[in-house]
Amino acid sequence: MPAPDPSQVEINADRLFATLDRSAAIGRGKTTGLCRLALSDADRKIRDEFARWCEADGFTLRVDQAGNMFARMEGAEDLPPVLIGSHLDTQVAGGRFDGILGVLTGLEILRSLKDAGITPKRPIEVVNWANEEGARFAPPMSSSAVFAGLRPLDWLYGLTDDDGLRFGDELARIGYKGEVEARAFDIDAYFEFHIEQGPELYDLGLPLGIVIGGYKSHGMNVIFRGETAHSGPTPMANRKNALVGAAKFISAVNDIGWEHAPLGKSTASRIALWPNKNGILPDYAETTVDMRHRDQAVTDRMVAKAKAALAEAANVAQVEYEIEAEWSFGTEVFDPELIDLVHRVARQRGIEAHEMHSQAGHDAYNLCRVAPTVLIFCPCIDGITHNEAEDIEREPTVQAANVVLQAVLTRANR
Amino acid sequence: MPAPDPSQVEINADRLFATLDRSAAIGRGKTTGLCRLALSDADRKIRDEFARWCEADGFTLRVDQAGNMFARMEGAEDLPPVLIGSHLDTQVAGGRFDGILGVLTGLEILRSLKDAGITPKRPIEVVNWANEEGARFAPPMSSSAVFAGLRPLDWLYGLTDDDGLRFGDELARIGYKGEVEARAFDIDAYFEFHIEQGPELYDLGLPLGIVIGGYKSHGMNVIFRGETAHSGPTPMANRKNALVGAAKFISAVNDIGWEHAPLGKSTASRIALWPNKNGILPDYAETTVDMRHRDQAVTDRMVAKAKAALAEAANVAQVEYEIEAEWSFGTEVFDPELIDLVHRVARQRGIEAHEMHSQAGHDAYNLCRVAPTVLIFCPCIDGITHNEAEDIEREPTVQAANVVLQAVLTRANR
Repeated sequence: MPAPDPSQVEINADRLFATLDRSAAIGRGKTTGLCRLALSDADRKIRDEFARWCEADGFTLRVDQAGNMFARMEGAEDLPPVLIGSHLDTQVAGGRFDGILGVLTGLEILRSLKDAGITPKRPIEVVNWANEEGARFAPPMSSSAVFAGLRPLDWLYGLTDDDGLRFGDELARIGYKGEVEARAFDIDAYFEFHIEQGPELYDLGLPLGIVIGGYKSHGMNVIFRGETAHSGPTPMANRKNALVGAAKFISAVNDIGWEHAPLGKSTASRIALWPNKNGILPDYAETTVDMRHRDQAVTDRMVAKAKAALAEAANVAQVEYEIEAEWSFGTEVFDPELIDLVHRVARQRGIEAHEMHSQAGHDAYNLCRVAPTVLIFCPCIDGITHNEAEDIEREPTVQAANVVLQAVLTRANR
Repeated sequence: MPAPDPSQVEINADRLFATLDRSAAIGRGKTTGLCRLALSDADRKIRDEFARWCEADGFTLRVDQAGNMFARMEGAEDLPPVLIGSHLDTQVAGGRFDGILGVLTGLEILRSLKDAGITPKRPIEVVNWANEEGARFAPPMSSSAVFAGLRPLDWLYGLTDDDGLRFGDELARIGYKGEVEARAFDIDAYFEFHIEQGPELYDLGLPLGIVIGGYKSHGMNVIFRGETAHSGPTPMANRKNALVGAAKFISAVNDIGWEHAPLGKSTASRIALWPNKNGILPDYAETTVDMRHRDQAVTDRMVAKAKAALAEAANVAQVEYEIEAEWSFGTEVFDPELIDLVHRVARQRGIEAHEMHSQAGHDAYNLCRVAPTVLIFCPCIDGITHNEAEDIEREPTVQAANVVLQAVLTRANR
């Protein structure tokens, strides 16, 4: 039997899509998508299944204190590993591929290398980052942030969902509060493979994108505090309706997005209100907003406008306000050497890789602080994500996944 | 022992306030108020307690299919009864007197008549109307509406709370789905005694108000339908964010109130949103708004403005909208003969009764369709209601309650 030619190894596309289908049966959404919120029972189920898949193929699993899962294929030498991964959690009405494709392509790469009898020089590890979406526990990308040393573990454990449940308790409940310290180890390279979030590749008809920068994003959690009163007779002048403050702010935030369209985007998608009943003015409103633009200077202007609108909204509604938390991402820099590597491999396979900006947050933004990192996109139909209708085409996905395999293997063999 | 002089009978103020205190211990709120939502466990407890109080004094109790409770003191003759009542349910952060004072003053009147050995010519019944507040099951005053034949029983049973629980099921669960048909019987007169909803009496320093008309109120339940999408990258032009539609509408509704202040009031105090998560644009928003003014023509103008603002808000947000329900009240007419009677009794007791407009809804608005009705107010400190800080002063409350006793007794003896 001849020795395998590593440059000829490809993924088993049928197996990859069969595994994606098995994932899509866990935490089904209302239609064709998924509702697999971080640390929910559905998250536990897909984690258990992912662990079984890894162990069945002899890849050893470890879980860190932040709930991140690592499945390892040993290398010929005891060198820092190459990592490939993303996340298995979803939005409450999310798709079947966002994040999931990256983790399961990582698993498929390990399986294909094993099938081909290839042992890379360096170990390769597939990682599932906990709570990437932040849909249940804000902010997003929380466990990779802890891993990268950007946030302390106590902060992560103290995050609460809208029912007041704590991250730390829920992580223990589903059995994924690991023993391994949640701290970056020596990593040779981190690859993240993900569907795009806009129809850029899809519209261009290209199978592969390399992210060379991120949209500069700034998020804020804002609280309005008013006073309960009878909603009928209370004179307008005496009202301190927290909902009015929030509504005027949310309206302004949306307008700011339009003022900077098409590159600027400005969003509020959530509101928490108390008592939130007819007949009584609410004394508490909380909302989360997010502004993003490709240029940092414009994002900064959008944030300044939002803060001015916030003060004005609270003033008109006669309520108090507080910016309870702020965060930003998108200024991160990906590794030129890894970007070159992906370009090279793509060219060898006859594919033109398209350089692009990521508009959404990804764990890669945290990982690039502690390891050479590259973020690779494949097209998604009409760019629809965070929607159950999210879908991909098989042909370009497989083309892109094979570039990822070859890039990972080349790096692992260096 | 001389025969009692009916015109000298007064309530036992200590007993009334002790009973109010016992009520205030059931369904305690966060501070000094109550959270006793309709058909909740707390509502069951106060109903059970009220039933025990009535039966301990020999007043027979019956419950109708709509959950309304009637406690009866027999009269000397089998004539249509005089009714006095209000409601024992509260807002989620309500006070200890709103509604409750009317029911427990009714009970105190029966007790005082019994103490004095007086049997009125007509029966007197104390009534507790179910779900006056509408805080859990919108709209308010639902069970008196069924009693008055304004709404069918099936409609009442089908109302759902924010957890999807049905009124009919919850009424059965707490054991108050009665056997008696929920339909107006022959009623001689209906008295409702209630705290005011604005500091009108309090500011004038008067103990007694007689309602001669209501603020013309118009409510709407509005639904916005958009589309879920990734909250970050989705271009503004492609967004169908239901929260933006709701926020712009709520903001406009508040502005309309200011345009017609001080007599005009316009409110949104509630929003239901789905998925209501960071990271995903919501495809569903629901809010309830309410506009009121003393003059019907102005209320009509406010409603027309709100409907124009609704269409505009939905258009700007690129979402669909639907006015799912509308209701109005306040055009009702109270009984001139009963109003004269209360004036006469007040004068006999040396009190000036102040004629005023009610700004809030009351079960009396439904009852006046089926019986001669009068609505009587007493002052409340600073006019604060639907707030746990709601409070009353003992002296004017007792003065007003004694007028109510004498008016009820006079009517029952005619």
